[in-house]
Amino acid sequence: MTPGATPAGLDAVELPALADIRAAHARILPFVHRTPVFTCRSLDDVIGAQLFWKCENLQKVGAFKARGACNAVFALPADDAARGVVTHSSGNHGAALAYAARRRGIPAHVVMPDNAPRIKVANVEGFGARIHYCKPTLAAREDACAQLQHATGATLVHPYDDFAVIAGQGTAALELLEAVPDLDAVVAPIGGGGVLSGTAIAAKAMQPDIDVLGAEPAAADDAARSFMSGTLQSMPNPQTIADGLRGALSERTLRALRMHVATIGTCSEEAIIAAMRLIWERMKVLIEPSSAVPLAAMLEGALSVRGRRVGVILTGGNVDLDRLPWQK
Amino acid sequence: MTPGATPAGLDAVELPALADIRAAHARILPFVHRTPVFTCRSLDDVIGAQLFWKCENLQKVGAFKARGACNAVFALPADDAARGVVTHSSGNHGAALAYAARRRGIPAHVVMPDNAPRIKVANVEGFGARIHYCKPTLAAREDACAQLQHATGATLVHPYDDFAVIAGQGTAALELLEAVPDLDAVVAPIGGGGVLSGTAIAAKAMQPDIDVLGAEPAAADDAARSFMSGTLQSMPNPQTIADGLRGALSERTLRALRMHVATIGTCSEEAIIAAMRLIWERMKVLIEPSSAVPLAAMLEGALSVRGRRVGVILTGGNVDLDRLPWQK
Repeated sequence: MTPGATPAGLDAVELPALADIRAAHARILPFVHRTPVFTCRSLDDVIGAQLFWKCENLQKVGAFKARGACNAVFALPADDAARGVVTHSSGNHGAALAYAARRRGIPAHVVMPDNAPRIKVANVEGFGARIHYCKPTLAAREDACAQLQHATGATLVHPYDDFAVIAGQGTAALELLEAVPDLDAVVAPIGGGGVLSGTAIAAKAMQPDIDVLGAEPAAADDAARSFMSGTLQSMPNPQTIADGLRGALSERTLRALRMHVATIGTCSEEAIIAAMRLIWERMKVLIEPSSAVPLAAMLEGALSVRGRRVGVILTGGNVDLDRLPWQK
Repeated sequence: MTPGATPAGLDAVELPALADIRAAHARILPFVHRTPVFTCRSLDDVIGAQLFWKCENLQKVGAFKARGACNAVFALPADDAARGVVTHSSGNHGAALAYAARRRGIPAHVVMPDNAPRIKVANVEGFGARIHYCKPTLAAREDACAQLQHATGATLVHPYDDFAVIAGQGTAALELLEAVPDLDAVVAPIGGGGVLSGTAIAAKAMQPDIDVLGAEPAAADDAARSFMSGTLQSMPNPQTIADGLRGALSERTLRALRMHVATIGTCSEEAIIAAMRLIWERMKVLIEPSSAVPLAAMLEGALSVRGRRVGVILTGGNVDLDRLPWQK
């Protein structure tokens, strides 16, 4: 076995409970923001519901991913931690892991395809992580990760198929329900299912009658199909503007969703762009396309929210300001 | 005398005191947001100061102008109020006055040049104001206002040369200093000087040793020159991207600035665009160019803030998302 790596099979589909999410919260609170919950009358009027926006776009590194990464990094035993952490996410999780590792003072290795956008490379490098380039295929990325684990003893921190990461992501919903206790429903977008799993576990344990809803681009609806069928459905190369939601569920996140989620609604690409712009204009905050997916699904009537009090996890705010989706 | 109009000369250079600002705050609180104060480590590092951002871009109608307009509208005696209010601002003050009038259930008349951008017209119409078009000159706008006052008995609410409006604008600094009591300095941008006057009166009364700083585009530096010389300097047609700051001081606002303001720093157009983008990227909130002027002046070293605790009024967030200034 690679030193520092999680033994294969162990913890394979284990899920955190509310107590783990509370422990994660206590662990990460010195390193993340307790983000505000916004309300916006004019968006409420558009949807016909009372919406409570948990602003993880205002989180450290600009995304909820700081929560899961900090929990995974700070939960490591000291000797494992000293050997560092590794991941092959070039998006928000990569930056979040780099941030968490810097806060703990340990090495972070991030494997990236050699065609990764300069802005993503700079974002991860800015937090002091070491970047390792590889060919732009999933196999090459996983190989590079395995080699790094072997060579350095670093611990792999998967962006969502990870007990500690899911527990960390659940802390956003924990804070939301502490701030607004009487919600009828809570919605989060789905990529690999990490934030929705954490949200669902926290919300159903805190308030068993709450409806947990997922939202996904129709162009990347593998999670909706996995959820309906109960078996993992894959999608080779989903074409959606919501670049944070291109991942596929794991056994672990599928299990959490099947246990706790009421519905997964899907939405068109046009609705994602319209919803993103609506949030920018009305709420005056930057969100990335993935964060607009819950509102997009509501706009298209794919989620039953009318007349209800609904919490929404606004997952992130990292966008390329030179290329906004409503511009030609 | 036009019914409902303020008698000429009376109150001509009268300024509110802290008690008036406190009274304004109690009056407007049901109709405006107590906006959050943000901090952002990475912007602090850029400037080398500890910055506290009072987010009036998250205010009703997307700008601090809601405060002054609500105070002016709700301070009117019932019979004057019933005849309505009028202004010739086509920007945030026009929308704010329309909003305030709608909340009180009285008519609002907004005079606009017949070449006003569609987006500004829609914004004011959206709050139910009646729009009156005129030729695009200041004289034509003032004439149209006077005619409307005469015909309807509506009260003119000037965007800044107004006792109640200045008292209302001062409530943002009141809240900021209540939230962060030990600031070394507070900065606001200057157009006609309304928000800086209100800020200065509130801040110096609450904390006499605070430095009140103004920031202005170098391309529209009439206020800086008026402030230095002590007499009103004019500038016919200032060319700055900070469209909210093209106004000129009045006797009233010049008096407030000369009494309470330590320095006015100016900045280049390039710095305004860079500062605006920096705030979008790092703080994940939308601000309009005018709101970026204090940071721009700090970036160019025009304000002494290094090592200090500095409050900044982020004045507004209304931007045209189809035309961002860093795009070609």
